[in-house]
Amino acid sequence: MLVNIRNLDLADRPAWERLWHGYVKFYRRRVDADVTDFTFARLWDPGSQPFGIVAADEAGRLLGIAHYLFRPTTWSRLDLCYLEDLFVDPGARGSGVGRSLINEVYSRADKRGVSGVYWLTQEFNADGRALYDTLARRTSFIRYQR
Amino acid sequence: MLVNIRNLDLADRPAWERLWHGYVKFYRRRVDADVTDFTFARLWDPGSQPFGIVAADEAGRLLGIAHYLFRPTTWSRLDLCYLEDLFVDPGARGSGVGRSLINEVYSRADKRGVSGVYWLTQEFNADGRALYDTLARRTSFIRYQR
Amino acid sequence: MLVNIRNLDLADRPAWERLWHGYVKFYRRRVDADVTDFTFARLWDPGSQPFGIVAADEAGRLLGIAHYLFRPTTWSRLDLCYLEDLFVDPGARGSGVGRSLINEVYSRADKRGVSGVYWLTQEFNADGRALYDTLARRTSFIRYQR
Amino acid sequence: MLVNIRNLDLADRPAWERLWHGYVKFYRRRVDADVTDFTFARLWDPGSQPFGIVAADEAGRLLGIAHYLFRPTTWSRLDLCYLEDLFVDPGARGSGVGRSLINEVYSRADKRGVSGVYWLTQEFNADGRALYDTLARRTSFIRYQR
Repeated sequence: MLVNIRNLDLADRPAWERLWHGYVKFYRRRVDADVTDFTFARLWDPGSQPFGIVAADEAGRLLGIAHYLFRPTTWSRLDLCYLEDLFVDPGARGSGVGRSLINEVYSRADKRGVSGVYWLTQEFNADGRALYDTLARRTSFIRYQR
Repeated sequence: MLVNIRNLDLADRPAWERLWHGYVKFYRRRVDADVTDFTFARLWDPGSQPFGIVAADEAGRLLGIAHYLFRPTTWSRLDLCYLEDLFVDPGARGSGVGRSLINEVYSRADKRGVSGVYWLTQEFNADGRALYDTLARRTSFIRYQR
Repeated sequence: MLVNIRNLDLADRPAWERLWHGYVKFYRRRVDADVTDFTFARLWDPGSQPFGIVAADEAGRLLGIAHYLFRPTTWSRLDLCYLEDLFVDPGARGSGVGRSLINEVYSRADKRGVSGVYWLTQEFNADGRALYDTLARRTSFIRYQR
Repeated sequence: MLVNIRNLDLADRPAWERLWHGYVKFYRRRVDADVTDFTFARLWDPGSQPFGIVAADEAGRLLGIAHYLFRPTTWSRLDLCYLEDLFVDPGARGSGVGRSLINEVYSRADKRGVSGVYWLTQEFNADGRALYDTLARRTSFIRYQR
């Protein structure tokens, strides 16, 4: 399958929202409509973080989304790139969409100059980790949260 | 022990550096001198992220340091607070220094308004996690990195 | 879907047994018929622990079961509530049945007054943990058994 | 070292309390004095759960404590034995005190007739687990808690 990766566009709103809701549901969470509005506005605006990219098939149908940002770190003069969200339409899995999205984030991070690219995933996310293990190192770090 | 928590100050540089090097060594890493300079400058400057706070005893001796920042998230209109570094002088452990530093970060995050406070730690960091388990939720999230 | 949560009833035996066997099979275990008899009798009897509750749809069909008990703890004057078993019909997953059952256990535990509610799950139980991560804290505790 | 294992006795209160406080501090927790009173009273009373046993050296000095209880389970007609607390004086570790306490719990559980003996420990408790791995099976179960 030919996958086209590009910036999230204002016209993507309905298709993005369908994937975003799938992503939120994957985590058994809920996000209020005003947060979805606010988040889409920031993702779409190239002047504010986080940034949004999408994967589309040849017909222009959205297959996946990724949201990322850059943040300072005490460990380097260069920022770190954090991939906050990644979601691929369940019907399009296994065809390289997730990999293409991550590679695009890598490429943008490299262009900017960073000291690393990272993301978090639930340790029991077997499908995701099967892909991530081919693209990145699983570290020993776990997340604590209040 | 009475522990005083306050902003990192320019005059703290030598004492901060001793703790910073202890922290870097804890992770068996190295940080170039220019990065340490750059990082200290940002930590000390209240106008740039990350922010630095310190714990001092009654004689003013530095016992611990914490570095944190705020970043946007797609899940909320409010930022998340990320505690990037926490280090307590080995000779001052078990006396509430780490707890006091985390509680100060909580308090500053609450004052600003955030959707959460989080940090990462190696899963085998027994001393750290024994404390964190009393202050926060250990989540199911692990970190991947390129 | 409208889910009705209520006490396990004597008349639930056939439907409960179907779910109970599904649960036992989930863990690749076997339970002798006399244990099933004994367990059902205790679950159904409001005067003996453990207690059983069920989730039913509008037509009265059983969709899920939960078994819980209260036990003393050295850490508090109040008991702890232990959710021993939770099972949702595979065909009814993702519709809030498990969440409703856990919330009912929370509510009963609160009514009684407890110092906590807890349960155990296999670390690789992705479906279960995806739900539990939204309802409770994953702790650092693992189980040893002779 | 010769270790004597016996029931907790009313006269053990001061020595038990010292170990109990060490145990609570190990978990970086606090327990109110009235809870300690209440817990000791139940541990010492052979008619109420949980039960308390102690390990003493030849001079009668307390080296370790263990608290356990029996609870029903849906998986068997027989109860399970839960070892809730185990603590050995840091100065007496590595000399078989913990092992003797666990073996005594095993022996009492066997005398009563149980379907199993189990306990929970933090996954990063290296010292404890080095012992437990020789006495029991580490299972795949982790604890969730509200």
